[in-house]
Amino acid sequence: MSAGPSRRARIVGTGLIGTSVGLALRAAGWQVSLQDPSPTAALLARDLGAGELDDLPPDVVVVAAPPDVAAQVVTKQLERWPDAVVTDVASVKGVVADGVRARGGDLSRYVGSHPMAGRERSGAVAARPDLFEGRAWVVVPTPASSDEAVERVVALARAARGEVVQLSAADHDAAVATVSHLPQVMATLTAARLRDQAEDAVGLAGQGLRDVTRIAASDPLLWTQILAGNAAGVRDVLRGVQDDLAVTVQALDQLARGEDARGARAVLAGLLDDGNRGRALVPGKHGGAPTTYEVVTVVVPDEPGALGRLFAAMGEADINLEDLHLEHAVGHPVALAEVSVLPAVADRLRDHLGSAGWRIH
Amino acid sequence: MSAGPSRRARIVGTGLIGTSVGLALRAAGWQVSLQDPSPTAALLARDLGAGELDDLPPDVVVVAAPPDVAAQVVTKQLERWPDAVVTDVASVKGVVADGVRARGGDLSRYVGSHPMAGRERSGAVAARPDLFEGRAWVVVPTPASSDEAVERVVALARAARGEVVQLSAADHDAAVATVSHLPQVMATLTAARLRDQAEDAVGLAGQGLRDVTRIAASDPLLWTQILAGNAAGVRDVLRGVQDDLAVTVQALDQLARGEDARGARAVLAGLLDDGNRGRALVPGKHGGAPTTYEVVTVVVPDEPGALGRLFAAMGEADINLEDLHLEHAVGHPVALAEVSVLPAVADRLRDHLGSAGWRIH
Repeated sequence: MSAGPSRRARIVGTGLIGTSVGLALRAAGWQVSLQDPSPTAALLARDLGAGELDDLPPDVVVVAAPPDVAAQVVTKQLERWPDAVVTDVASVKGVVADGVRARGGDLSRYVGSHPMAGRERSGAVAARPDLFEGRAWVVVPTPASSDEAVERVVALARAARGEVVQLSAADHDAAVATVSHLPQVMATLTAARLRDQAEDAVGLAGQGLRDVTRIAASDPLLWTQILAGNAAGVRDVLRGVQDDLAVTVQALDQLARGEDARGARAVLAGLLDDGNRGRALVPGKHGGAPTTYEVVTVVVPDEPGALGRLFAAMGEADINLEDLHLEHAVGHPVALAEVSVLPAVADRLRDHLGSAGWRIH
Repeated sequence: MSAGPSRRARIVGTGLIGTSVGLALRAAGWQVSLQDPSPTAALLARDLGAGELDDLPPDVVVVAAPPDVAAQVVTKQLERWPDAVVTDVASVKGVVADGVRARGGDLSRYVGSHPMAGRERSGAVAARPDLFEGRAWVVVPTPASSDEAVERVVALARAARGEVVQLSAADHDAAVATVSHLPQVMATLTAARLRDQAEDAVGLAGQGLRDVTRIAASDPLLWTQILAGNAAGVRDVLRGVQDDLAVTVQALDQLARGEDARGARAVLAGLLDDGNRGRALVPGKHGGAPTTYEVVTVVVPDEPGALGRLFAAMGEADINLEDLHLEHAVGHPVALAEVSVLPAVADRLRDHLGSAGWRIH
């Protein structure tokens, strides 16, 4: 491997992630070469400024191919560029390292990556140089990876402005099975129940259903690859869900049959309490411990610019807003803006907006 | 029953919903009497302007008691006020009607209600006169309810500015089992899996996990009553989930064991596709068909007033914003504001914000 800091990258696969990596590295002064099985996709990424279509020798190759071909492409790149470190960006990691090992690839020069970005958008045209800014970029060495190889991938992730977190493949895959793949399956299972519902029943849906099912709109083909690539981890987490669900259904069945049902309510309350405690672990702002904010709810008429005027009024208040959700109600031309702020400033925000003529809930 | 439009209500139970009903009816010019087992709660509601602590004969009694005592309180009120119609606001309806019937209450004067409001807040101090504005208020007659009784409850719901939807108890309970109780259980089951996770694993969580688990923070005692009150309906929906989940776990297990697993990927893709189609039924703005919006993502530095300045800049663009989510990333002092607008105006918003110095993703 060549000496000095890595400054030459090759991107193999110019979809959303690959093109964004190219744009980010170019912005950081790196030299970037591009490659894609589709000549049109490669030309598009070049025209967007993500790099050049040349064959200059790279320090690091970034394989941004679909999860089910990542190991094969990584192995080929390890063979083609014997002085380069190779990483990939698939959202499952054990299966890629296993595949490289099975193909006899040089594991000392392979280090996995998982930039936690790019959900729900696709294609080079959606690429942005700051896609990774402020998001975790998990770096996943194999036991055989050299220190030098890890350093090069860490340097690349930082140049792309990701926040580097280093984990083993097993720890990474177990973590994403719970924090990423589980919510996808649960959102999908929930949304799948809506198929047979009458339209006016679904019309009663509130923000709860909308939140729980939002990611059920994700791409089935991509998610089939992700779930298949982390099959054991996801299976194990879902078996825990099956156990909790079986106990829940049994308790509900006892209550539905009008039996004595001693203890059935305690089962439900215990599960709901477990949910409270699990939810409390979900990171809030900046990945730190969740903070309790106060919600100020404002009625927004449905007319052009109304929300803009509300935002302008909030801007005048000079208060740090922590979160904002819009809730649209069934059959009525108003929206409710739920603004989260620190409790200490909630009254000031209410007073300010109220005196500016806004209706506060 | 007295002639003429209903203008006199009695509220029994002065928590969030009861007090809000009182405030809304007072704002509409109704005379409101208040009652609560807790003298302090009743006095607080009176001081907030929700009504008076008198015993004037009502046209409609609104029972806003916890679900597990609603039938008992409704029956008592039917006996106490023989000229009045009685409604309740519990979020399960069959069990209340059954309880009134079992107690020998006069079902011709009972009509159930379910105002779809009030989630995640509680107590009279959180009450607002416009809590029901633009939200569905389901009116649930029994087969024995008189037309006059139904009319009075519809008039009350409209006076409180709810959007009236009329359903049978069975249809109501089946609908909320799927659109309200199912998402609660699924959010709870998802969050419950986080208990045993290492902190840095949960730290990788993104917006998907946050959305799916948000309502897992709901009150366990209240939700135990709700789930117990709709036990058969929720059980039946969850049995459907159990079936889908069993097939999913089996497919993952085949893939994890490295068996031939013929068809396992098709099972996963089929479920994900079902989820896509179910999600597409979830109403968007105003309960109408969901519209596809384009998302403009803006980088927001974490400093006081930054979001306010962004809102002010958006206000100047005079574009109708359809939705806004803030995403906070792990370990980095910026937030991403994801602004949904109609596709036709997305470029204009990008140009406007870009020229005002905002970094657009």
